[in-house]
Amino acid sequence: MQKGHLLYEGKAKSLYATDEPNVIWMTYKDDATALNGARKTAFANKGRLNNQISTLLFHYLEKNGVQTHLLETLSETEQLVKKVDVIALEVVVRNVMAGSLAKKLGVAEGAVLAEPIVEFYYKDDALDDPFINEDHIRFLGLATLAEIAELKTVAHTINALLQERFKAANIELVDFKIELGRLADGSIVLADEISPDSCRLWDSETKQKLDKDVFRRDLGDLVSVYEEVLRRLTA
Amino acid sequence: MQKGHLLYEGKAKSLYATDEPNVIWMTYKDDATALNGARKTAFANKGRLNNQISTLLFHYLEKNGVQTHLLETLSETEQLVKKVDVIALEVVVRNVMAGSLAKKLGVAEGAVLAEPIVEFYYKDDALDDPFINEDHIRFLGLATLAEIAELKTVAHTINALLQERFKAANIELVDFKIELGRLADGSIVLADEISPDSCRLWDSETKQKLDKDVFRRDLGDLVSVYEEVLRRLTA
Repeated sequence: MQKGHLLYEGKAKSLYATDEPNVIWMTYKDDATALNGARKTAFANKGRLNNQISTLLFHYLEKNGVQTHLLETLSETEQLVKKVDVIALEVVVRNVMAGSLAKKLGVAEGAVLAEPIVEFYYKDDALDDPFINEDHIRFLGLATLAEIAELKTVAHTINALLQERFKAANIELVDFKIELGRLADGSIVLADEISPDSCRLWDSETKQKLDKDVFRRDLGDLVSVYEEVLRRLTA
Repeated sequence: MQKGHLLYEGKAKSLYATDEPNVIWMTYKDDATALNGARKTAFANKGRLNNQISTLLFHYLEKNGVQTHLLETLSETEQLVKKVDVIALEVVVRNVMAGSLAKKLGVAEGAVLAEPIVEFYYKDDALDDPFINEDHIRFLGLATLAEIAELKTVAHTINALLQERFKAANIELVDFKIELGRLADGSIVLADEISPDSCRLWDSETKQKLDKDVFRRDLGDLVSVYEEVLRRLTA
């Protein structure tokens, strides 16, 4: 497999073409960004840690029946993934009240939700990824009614699986963001990554933050908490 | 019927008790507010016009099978209404892209929507009435799943009826906000008001604004456009 030209440079990953039209070469970067990219810092080893954590979680989800874009992990920071038609939505699942939703609803952080909350955000940097509803999704032509129902089902399935996996590592899955895409046959697969960049993870007992909030809120050394997450998941 | 003590003073209306425990005395004020009350101006006759327009529209909706809280219009600015357990949601229905949604989605104002868009906002002044989804409604305990479905159905029904009524008056119903409440038996009825304060109304041909945007955007004399709406609806 030959790495080709740069297709897309995101905040935390870059995508390259390959000599195979349906295969993308994905590289994890060491940058961390906050406030939709307004704040950016490089952390040595973050790319390697996210690649390892995401690989491990994607394999786990695949083994449990969730289709993903992952084909092969090539190196410490590189993966081969299936080319997908990305759905321009960030799908957020919440198990514990935290972050922007706690602020928006005027509720304290930390309350465990009786049922998970699923939210859709329109992936558009220029618009600051606005929170939208299902009627907006249809207006924007991002997904059909049937696809929206499938996205929610997949989100709940992934949530239940990840909660179990993290719980075994003594980590509480507070919330997380996923992105999904369509294969050529229209089937929907998990794309992007699942890592402490895209999840809120708290130590089950101490509630210590083990995710990008350490960077967002200046709470200490980001890389050592990502290392701790990987250590616990592989223990 | 005796007017009792003040129960609630809102931005555009006040509610008083009566000697009948299930009946509320509602008075329309002349104030117009924008930016969630940060800007406020009194317009002589606005209360009278909104009371007349809302009375006319509530009677029309009742005649067409929509249950409302309206009992009787007492005077130019006063109504008797059924006491309801208000659902703390603003239900917005949109037929044409305009206002905050156009800005949020980066779309030009004026595009006619293939299907109406329904949105829920959490009525909480301190939180600035945030836009929420159905999972948030259930988390907040504002309505059950079945009630949410009913709210959407009622909103679509009211929209279809109002569109027709306004069209006959050469007015395009761009979008509007309603509030609903529960009677003692749990049935959901339309509450609050429907007026140029709560609707976006454009002249069908010229697209001239005939609603509170005239005040929000400083486009001319508010009261004369409200008078024009009443004139057209009673012509």
